[in-house]
Amino acid sequence: MHTDTSQFVTATYLVHSKGGDLHKKALGIAHGLTVGTWTELPETKKEEMKKHLGHVVSVEELGKDENGRIKARLTIAYPMINLTPDIPALLTTIFGKLSMDGMIRLVDVTFPEAFVKQFPGPKFGIDGIRKLLGVYNRPLLMSIFKSCIGYDLKTMAEQFYLQAAGGVDLVKDDEILFDETYAPFEKRIEACLRAAENAERETGKKVLYAANLTGPVTEIFTKAKRAVRAGANALLINVLPFGYDVLHRLAADPEITVPLVAHPALAGAFYASDRYGISAPILLGKLMRLAGADFVLYPSPYGSVAMEREETLQIAAHLRGKREGLKTSFPVPSAGIHPGMVPLLYRDFGVDHVVNAGGGIHGHPQGATAGGRAFVAAIDATCKGIPFKEAAAESRELEEALALWGCPEEVS
Amino acid sequence: MHTDTSQFVTATYLVHSKGGDLHKKALGIAHGLTVGTWTELPETKKEEMKKHLGHVVSVEELGKDENGRIKARLTIAYPMINLTPDIPALLTTIFGKLSMDGMIRLVDVTFPEAFVKQFPGPKFGIDGIRKLLGVYNRPLLMSIFKSCIGYDLKTMAEQFYLQAAGGVDLVKDDEILFDETYAPFEKRIEACLRAAENAERETGKKVLYAANLTGPVTEIFTKAKRAVRAGANALLINVLPFGYDVLHRLAADPEITVPLVAHPALAGAFYASDRYGISAPILLGKLMRLAGADFVLYPSPYGSVAMEREETLQIAAHLRGKREGLKTSFPVPSAGIHPGMVPLLYRDFGVDHVVNAGGGIHGHPQGATAGGRAFVAAIDATCKGIPFKEAAAESRELEEALALWGCPEEVS
Repeated sequence: MHTDTSQFVTATYLVHSKGGDLHKKALGIAHGLTVGTWTELPETKKEEMKKHLGHVVSVEELGKDENGRIKARLTIAYPMINLTPDIPALLTTIFGKLSMDGMIRLVDVTFPEAFVKQFPGPKFGIDGIRKLLGVYNRPLLMSIFKSCIGYDLKTMAEQFYLQAAGGVDLVKDDEILFDETYAPFEKRIEACLRAAENAERETGKKVLYAANLTGPVTEIFTKAKRAVRAGANALLINVLPFGYDVLHRLAADPEITVPLVAHPALAGAFYASDRYGISAPILLGKLMRLAGADFVLYPSPYGSVAMEREETLQIAAHLRGKREGLKTSFPVPSAGIHPGMVPLLYRDFGVDHVVNAGGGIHGHPQGATAGGRAFVAAIDATCKGIPFKEAAAESRELEEALALWGCPEEVS
Repeated sequence: MHTDTSQFVTATYLVHSKGGDLHKKALGIAHGLTVGTWTELPETKKEEMKKHLGHVVSVEELGKDENGRIKARLTIAYPMINLTPDIPALLTTIFGKLSMDGMIRLVDVTFPEAFVKQFPGPKFGIDGIRKLLGVYNRPLLMSIFKSCIGYDLKTMAEQFYLQAAGGVDLVKDDEILFDETYAPFEKRIEACLRAAENAERETGKKVLYAANLTGPVTEIFTKAKRAVRAGANALLINVLPFGYDVLHRLAADPEITVPLVAHPALAGAFYASDRYGISAPILLGKLMRLAGADFVLYPSPYGSVAMEREETLQIAAHLRGKREGLKTSFPVPSAGIHPGMVPLLYRDFGVDHVVNAGGGIHGHPQGATAGGRAFVAAIDATCKGIPFKEAAAESRELEEALALWGCPEEVS
């Protein structure tokens, strides 16, 4: 049966099967997750239900695994009209019941343009963020509050200032900051933005503050608007614990006029196995962009929490590739990043990514401001093709950072 | 350090480690996911931050796996005051970043009473549901719309009637029903409830209809209230795709006065691997009950989409065990259930569970009504200890069901 790609969402699964007819299995999915049963339907009913019927696009055998299981990729097309344009409907349909049905992993998903058009996508996109910051032709630099649980407003503002003074473009809350006893959300935003202004007067650089948006889903949208009224210029959200639809509706709300930073908390629970779950490029690439993240954090191929390089590149490709009707998202390969890694990140992710550091900024021997400066120098040198040895002669902060953390040899 | 269990949430992880010091790893988690760093803090700061500090409760080595990796269970205590009382805060804290940090699986979580008290738990619980239905001393019977995509109101009402007439206690929508073009939500509820009344006049039994609650999270709460005003007497929700907090806020809303049925769609993406993700008893047991599900569907140990028997029993134990401040939830072991399995389910799950069938009702040679009757006879016989052979002599429908699908020998 011919599948009109403008009308179908397709999903590709990697299966490891003990045997049996894979074409039959694929057909079972295509029918079972759309019209239920097909062959038993009377002809008149078939005519009526045809438009809701799923199709098998392909069944590709990939040989056997070490336990003699047959590996295969199955691609199924689901009629777009069966779904509503939201990620819960998408995931429930293509990987709801199916996620529980043996050794199966969701490894790709494609959407017709008419489906994508019903999603917001990023509010700003890479171009919009660059315009907002007035920064072009270099990766951005993001700094993470080292820890902020239990910090009062004054301490947070001081910490913010120290980070911003180093020349970072964006400071984000720790994603585990939930309790607001000591630093209530709007007051925290106001305090950090005052600190940002103080730093900006010295550095001449605009700094965004991505405050962690938390709380009941019944209140989170009005809370986001309160944040915007309080002057917030970015928001951080733990997308997977809250559900993609929360990001989607924040992105779609015209009153929430700030970039949205997606944290990947909980993502490993989906992507870490290679036989089950959902692959990282889909989870953190395609779906995050569709739902409207301007920035997406994820593990870099280097550093403390590493992901396979190929996967990190695929995520970036999904976030930045040309896609009708969707702005782009900034890839933010993170975790354990220090200045010596900048050339590697630049080689892998190019100019349009965000260098994101926590320990690599706060752990600098001269403190967070020096930590930021070391990164600024590293990014500047890398973009200009200046060897680090030369750059370090001009930047004491970079010199000290390289002395402490080293510099991978491959690129520098 | 002594850990006062009334103040800490604990999380237990199964790790497979290539080596290294597991105590150090555990300490890294306890500190890293609470105060950030500890040993480097000045003493005055330590005093202030102590209440936010995580502790290592235990590190238990379990030998090596087939690849020589050390298996271990690490239990970490997180101060309750670091969290807000919601599942996104809980999951982000205990398994946000950590889910991406190597071969690690969340296998248990405990909450202090003061934490639990801030959650709604089930609105009705098993006792409340039994009172609502007037059904005691037997498992309940749930039927699933075979497929309802593309069905108009009339067809849905007819199908509902056929199911209800067989004597089921509850009919649920297919979880993949999203599009409401042909059968808009409130009209569908009204049509099915009229069909329920018609069936009730014949059977004398009350029937609940769990309509699939879908749509944007920004509208889902008002939609639920509209459903209640339209007469809805239950709601189905795909908890994981929407996020636990949606269930939590539905359960906590006093205007939503109907039982909530939790579908496990997407759960396999979390629990299916044995080295990553979140174990099914936590995902579908502890957390679903905490967030307020009155019924929780999950794979039975038998049938088409199977789960290990031990896991299914643990889920049931978490849903029904005595727990201060929380009502109980009905376990609904599902997928591929036919009447011959009722004795096995009864042996495993006892009187307080729900027998849930789709194909096992619709696929009956005499249709859905006969399918329901066969289950009613099977449940009745099982509770009374009447052998199926005897019961089938009294019920033509049961006889035909057993002839078609057979009857596992172990119990009958």
